[in-house]
Amino acid sequence: MRFHPAFEKLRDCFGRLPGIGRRSAERLVFGLLTDQEGLLPELAAALREVEAQLRCCRMCGALTVAGEDPCRFCTDPGRDDGLLCVVEATADIMRIEQAGGYRGRYHALMGRLSPMGGMGVQDLRLAALLERIERGAFREVILALNSNVESDATASFIRSRLAGRNLQVSRPAMGIPAGSGVAYADALTLACAMKSRQAFY
Amino acid sequence: MRFHPAFEKLRDCFGRLPGIGRRSAERLVFGLLTDQEGLLPELAAALREVEAQLRCCRMCGALTVAGEDPCRFCTDPGRDDGLLCVVEATADIMRIEQAGGYRGRYHALMGRLSPMGGMGVQDLRLAALLERIERGAFREVILALNSNVESDATASFIRSRLAGRNLQVSRPAMGIPAGSGVAYADALTLACAMKSRQAFY
Repeated sequence: MRFHPAFEKLRDCFGRLPGIGRRSAERLVFGLLTDQEGLLPELAAALREVEAQLRCCRMCGALTVAGEDPCRFCTDPGRDDGLLCVVEATADIMRIEQAGGYRGRYHALMGRLSPMGGMGVQDLRLAALLERIERGAFREVILALNSNVESDATASFIRSRLAGRNLQVSRPAMGIPAGSGVAYADALTLACAMKSRQAFY
Repeated sequence: MRFHPAFEKLRDCFGRLPGIGRRSAERLVFGLLTDQEGLLPELAAALREVEAQLRCCRMCGALTVAGEDPCRFCTDPGRDDGLLCVVEATADIMRIEQAGGYRGRYHALMGRLSPMGGMGVQDLRLAALLERIERGAFREVILALNSNVESDATASFIRSRLAGRNLQVSRPAMGIPAGSGVAYADALTLACAMKSRQAFY
């Protein structure tokens, strides 16, 4: 279906965002034009603000403000320089920070190896990771990647590239989620939880 | 979880769009900041273009350009002034035009009566519809609303307001979708299709 070029341009921009298909993008444009009067200029202004103020830290990839790059996670002298937590996405850093308890440094890969999705070694911030580890004084690298085939392959790839160094490589524990139970866990999760069982005092 | 005010403002703007929840909105902002470099200014520019160029026709609510209000559907002398098609949304006008075959006028209500959703008679373009019908020379009003409880109630409400006029009020046929079959239709659709069966030559 053909629309005005301005409509199609905005629809296509929306369509490039994660999780937004062509039909959803179309609905968003109609929503801006009809359901939500006044939202269009507000959204444009909000985009300008984000563009002006927010950055991804060039060191770790965390969300930071324009004048603060490297970010506070990278520069905070109170954080442990021996610990590096590798994540897939900027958002993951925020989640781990929110969870609390971790006080090391971060490195976001900005994706995972995905031959089908066209993400290769060069498309991730892997060279930067290896260089940071080379230059740094890390004693442990935590591969806090997601739990799926591509993420597992990415973790294995990184581990292989770190072999032979005096460096502990770890992954977060896999197990039964807090607030859940044995009856709700899938077989793989439960097998991992049983295998990684911990002494209970 | 607290983010930078510019982040939260943009997330909240996205969150006001149809079908975008808070978590999705957050993912969109992260997507703009990380996955899709260069998309952010492009999206801002596309929004400005849409704001500058596109309008909803003040007469019928169809998508139109800034210099063309009332729109071409309202002003085209080749269209039938005796037929008025009432729809819920701007997008519906486009769908009906794309389907082809209809050559009358349009009127988008910009919603439907929804006591739970806070949409009352005053929130729809109902007064404008009645005024158009009062002033116009329509012989038939087609209530091309959706098929659900609220839309049905809206259609009934409009029909009651049009009672006593020398005016045919109709709704599009309900039946088995093209390309589908009896086995795939739900009971209500099938009952309607059977009841509205048509002579087959």
